[in-house]
Amino acid sequence: MNLDNIRIVLVNTTHPGNIGGVARAMKNMGLSRLVLVAPLNYPHEQARWRAASAEDLLASAVVVDSVEEAIADCQFVVGTSARERRIPWPLLDPRQCAARIGSLSDREQVAVLFGREDRGLTNGELQQCNLHLNIPTSDAYSSLNLAMAVQIVCYELRMLLVQGELAADEDAQWDTPFATVENMERFYVHLEETLTELEFLDPAAPRQLMARLRRLYGRVRLDEMELNILRGILTETHKWVARGHAARDMVK
Amino acid sequence: MNLDNIRIVLVNTTHPGNIGGVARAMKNMGLSRLVLVAPLNYPHEQARWRAASAEDLLASAVVVDSVEEAIADCQFVVGTSARERRIPWPLLDPRQCAARIGSLSDREQVAVLFGREDRGLTNGELQQCNLHLNIPTSDAYSSLNLAMAVQIVCYELRMLLVQGELAADEDAQWDTPFATVENMERFYVHLEETLTELEFLDPAAPRQLMARLRRLYGRVRLDEMELNILRGILTETHKWVARGHAARDMVK
Repeated sequence: MNLDNIRIVLVNTTHPGNIGGVARAMKNMGLSRLVLVAPLNYPHEQARWRAASAEDLLASAVVVDSVEEAIADCQFVVGTSARERRIPWPLLDPRQCAARIGSLSDREQVAVLFGREDRGLTNGELQQCNLHLNIPTSDAYSSLNLAMAVQIVCYELRMLLVQGELAADEDAQWDTPFATVENMERFYVHLEETLTELEFLDPAAPRQLMARLRRLYGRVRLDEMELNILRGILTETHKWVARGHAARDMVK
Repeated sequence: MNLDNIRIVLVNTTHPGNIGGVARAMKNMGLSRLVLVAPLNYPHEQARWRAASAEDLLASAVVVDSVEEAIADCQFVVGTSARERRIPWPLLDPRQCAARIGSLSDREQVAVLFGREDRGLTNGELQQCNLHLNIPTSDAYSSLNLAMAVQIVCYELRMLLVQGELAADEDAQWDTPFATVENMERFYVHLEETLTELEFLDPAAPRQLMARLRRLYGRVRLDEMELNILRGILTETHKWVARGHAARDMVK
């Protein structure tokens, strides 16, 4: 388990105090890598004040413009989600999630995304995640403060670390590195183009097709060789479909 | 387990914002009984602001003058403690502690004491406790914000409460049945035929291609809808490739 390979990504945070609270929560639990996606009021005095002795963590925080940029080099991405989505995604509680990312963190880059204070992550952002994380709450009041949510996730990682009993996971002996988010996004573009050429996907009425395929390939986590195979298939398919289009045009 | 029998007691809190944060953290996790021992600045606007939708919990908070008064009717008292004391006391982490007080709460009054922001509970206060609770932290920065500490303890109580109801695994909420072996085998036949038509797979030199694809789709466990999507793509691909073959034959 390597906490330095786990980054906390805050998306469009509104209150700078929360950013400070997150920095402190992380440092208390031994995490160090904070990424801020287009924060609304930052830097800000309140962030420094709430960070207390975690100002160094704020100072080393990386500010980027987009979620894509924040997670491009990651092999595993978790999104925190308050509510059930239209298409159910693999969903874990913080303890199960810590167990999962704790063991991956030895050899991979992991990101945990936290959304906006008022409405969390968008569906598009959640569909970039391998799995979703839900913190159990009372039905009477389910909206956790952002820094509190980060605290709970970081606490579970710390508990796992001090327990010292990481279960070896099923991927520990894998032969090929897992694909990064950046390469997966290229694959999705390629896949969508090909499905459109095949007239299987109608861009005017895409329904949930790409979301379902993202969920499928996000769930499996492709390794680099598998990704190359699938892209190879898409490339060959493209050639034949182009010939097929030519044939159809001739018939007309 | 009865969360209404577990009270959170804050001793001489300095920052009213922390009291609000505690109220919210408690309500998020389903706790309701807050006792304030001689808070320094209370009531206060900052407490209400940080409490957000947990203002009712602030309104019903009991303010008393002494720890003795706060815990007089309790049968079990836990004190949070950052450091080792001169006389070692029974010391548990939040998870162990939740298990202990969760089961007691069915029939007894339980208090969890949280000390001052700067120096915690006094030795005298800690010696009034049945056991001590320590939240594991990084050596680099061990001082947790007060509301964060309460959040972690309340979260552990909630986890204990919902364990019985929690989905055992990430797929528990899945919307569609997973594919049977029989249907998967049909899919692999269909896939192999299509890859051969695409001339991506050479039956004379198949190498490990089908094995790798079987590993990929076996790992992900396709649900029936995903399987139908993939077979639909193969069917469309077949049509276009047939047209493409026809076009190539015409050119010859």
